[in-house]
Amino acid sequence: MDLQTSPLALPFPEMPAIAGVTLRAVPARYKDWDRNDLTLVELDQGTAVAGVFTRSACPSSEVELGREQVRNGRARALVVNAGNSNAFTGARGREAVEHIMDLVATHLGCQRDAVFVSSTGVIGVPLPVERARDGLEKAFRAAPCAWKDAAEAIATTDTFAKGAHASAMIGDQRVELAGIIKGSGMIAPDMATMLGYVMTDVAIAPAFLQELLERANATSFCCITVDGDTSTSDTVLVFATGKAGNPPIEGWDSPGADAFAAALDDVCQRLAQLVVRDGEGASKFITVRVSGATSDESARRVGLAIANSPLVKTAIAGEDANWGRVVMAVGKAGEPADRDRLSIAFGGTWTARNGVVVEGYDEAPVAEHLKGNDIDLAVDLGLGNGRAKVWTCDLTHGYISFNADYRS
Amino acid sequence: MDLQTSPLALPFPEMPAIAGVTLRAVPARYKDWDRNDLTLVELDQGTAVAGVFTRSACPSSEVELGREQVRNGRARALVVNAGNSNAFTGARGREAVEHIMDLVATHLGCQRDAVFVSSTGVIGVPLPVERARDGLEKAFRAAPCAWKDAAEAIATTDTFAKGAHASAMIGDQRVELAGIIKGSGMIAPDMATMLGYVMTDVAIAPAFLQELLERANATSFCCITVDGDTSTSDTVLVFATGKAGNPPIEGWDSPGADAFAAALDDVCQRLAQLVVRDGEGASKFITVRVSGATSDESARRVGLAIANSPLVKTAIAGEDANWGRVVMAVGKAGEPADRDRLSIAFGGTWTARNGVVVEGYDEAPVAEHLKGNDIDLAVDLGLGNGRAKVWTCDLTHGYISFNADYRS
Repeated sequence: MDLQTSPLALPFPEMPAIAGVTLRAVPARYKDWDRNDLTLVELDQGTAVAGVFTRSACPSSEVELGREQVRNGRARALVVNAGNSNAFTGARGREAVEHIMDLVATHLGCQRDAVFVSSTGVIGVPLPVERARDGLEKAFRAAPCAWKDAAEAIATTDTFAKGAHASAMIGDQRVELAGIIKGSGMIAPDMATMLGYVMTDVAIAPAFLQELLERANATSFCCITVDGDTSTSDTVLVFATGKAGNPPIEGWDSPGADAFAAALDDVCQRLAQLVVRDGEGASKFITVRVSGATSDESARRVGLAIANSPLVKTAIAGEDANWGRVVMAVGKAGEPADRDRLSIAFGGTWTARNGVVVEGYDEAPVAEHLKGNDIDLAVDLGLGNGRAKVWTCDLTHGYISFNADYRS
Repeated sequence: MDLQTSPLALPFPEMPAIAGVTLRAVPARYKDWDRNDLTLVELDQGTAVAGVFTRSACPSSEVELGREQVRNGRARALVVNAGNSNAFTGARGREAVEHIMDLVATHLGCQRDAVFVSSTGVIGVPLPVERARDGLEKAFRAAPCAWKDAAEAIATTDTFAKGAHASAMIGDQRVELAGIIKGSGMIAPDMATMLGYVMTDVAIAPAFLQELLERANATSFCCITVDGDTSTSDTVLVFATGKAGNPPIEGWDSPGADAFAAALDDVCQRLAQLVVRDGEGASKFITVRVSGATSDESARRVGLAIANSPLVKTAIAGEDANWGRVVMAVGKAGEPADRDRLSIAFGGTWTARNGVVVEGYDEAPVAEHLKGNDIDLAVDLGLGNGRAKVWTCDLTHGYISFNADYRS
């Protein structure tokens, strides 16, 4: 299949090196392709780790193992396999992951549990252990690579390499955060899916890093949707090498905790948005802003109901200010709502206020806004102070072509 | 827009007359079209009524009023307006409905609350009261019409008229049930949506009729999905005229209660399936059978997660036995599941058993099955005895064309 770069793609940014992080990418040939598909990230001793994983009841072995490993709070390496998700492969799949962990642990002289593994690609085929082993042998000898090389090596059906970075000041000490991500849907063909990694040189206690990641996750990866389908492999890991030399952040009272949390939020939100920008068939990037809800969580759920509605997404694809479909989506969200207090705006122009069309509603500015590819949809529920932002893309013929017009 | 008849359409059946029910259909010209769009159903004195309505938090005035009226258990008339859903029209919308109720109640000499009104079509435009009044005047004088005429008059974007009937023996007394329905999605463009009506001559207590309808609803209208979008107007009403002369059914211990319940289940399931067969862009009718769940309700939720998954629906559109997407959908359903006990079959051929691909899996019979337009997808969770059937259609370019390739 010929994949054209998404019209919503952003260029890969200049990303800072992170002290204590060494990236390598090599070809393991998990598929019959001519590209790097095994990424090995070496992390210096003392690296803290935090992670969030898919809530699928049918996760991959990598996810099951990763959930256990994160509890230890320490990491020395990350291996990402692209081209084979190793999902739905039973005991053999788990053995393959454990074998990779053993090989890397022996090479680095570390605990097996400090080696994290992710896999993405076709399902139902156990990861070929001999290819992983040959790939790792190559990786152990390979020269370090750049962020963009790693971002390309973890990708599968992505149409562009995705990265984001930020920095924060802790006292007069600058800490850096750099993240890469792959995914072009909550799930894409053959179970290619969302895998994200943020590396930082900050010194931080693992338990607090986990708290900050869960907080950032709630307003970033939990606020995007391409098609409402949740993968069996979704994983986001944050690795903190501690090389920045800041006084370790132990909790909210530690100096710089707020600044680092804000930087982490920022990187996670930008990575999440990049996944939406590579949504299958996407032609519009849509920000859904919900206000006036009874709580922030309620606002998020209403936002996702709108963002997941095929009728809202096709309306925007058709550049149609069909606010009736937005009313429908609010109504089905299962959250408190009152039809007669509901207001809806496209691109800052209110089309409906308090449950009726705005008097003398002029569609011209709305139609103009909808012709662009960065769409703003605001919904005020008129009930409380809860608010949330959710990001999605439109639903087009491209999505159908991508997912129906071929045989796997 | 040129609407071609769904390839999954079924012919309108021969339907029995129901004693005590008189159908009339006339043009009220709610839109600029040359067809009947106002349906008036007159019901003899003593008619019991039961109803189920959308759970949308933003329902139409018709739904709000209908919910109250059903509590009285008695009906004398039904008015269905097609072409204008009267949704999101505030106080003016409610006044229009009450005006229609008044006109019909005066004509029939009955209580206003015994007149039920449904509306379907464009939203945000209050129902034009003068057109409704002129239409009703015509209807009061019109000759009775046939079931198919009524089924056509309540339709909007439907591509074929939909009806189903059944009968049941109560002792040696035969009772008849006849139903019509409109809808081609849980919601279709411009909020055209699902409205269903079943008429029967059975004598039955309203409270028990309500119980039976809720029971039938749980395995029929609650088990279909086209696009996962829930409308603001969904309504199903059952009217029982009592003209069959059977000893009134008061509860499960009454003679014939089981037989009537089974007939009602049957009509509701067939009406529900007809809506799926007219799903926007549908090219395949899909039955999802879930077994081995921890409860029937859990099985239904898993079935709907599969039936609502854009990736499962596009895979079937592409005639691709992509069981990995089925695993994904099971995993995201939020219900108990165990990856390593999960089994999946297409058209009776098991592709995966207990979490791994079947040894020596031969795709040929599955590929052959998927070329047809009546697809059977079975999922066994291997956990308990809960089971459910859910019906849906595939997701095709036709859906996108229908919902994105035009301006409303």
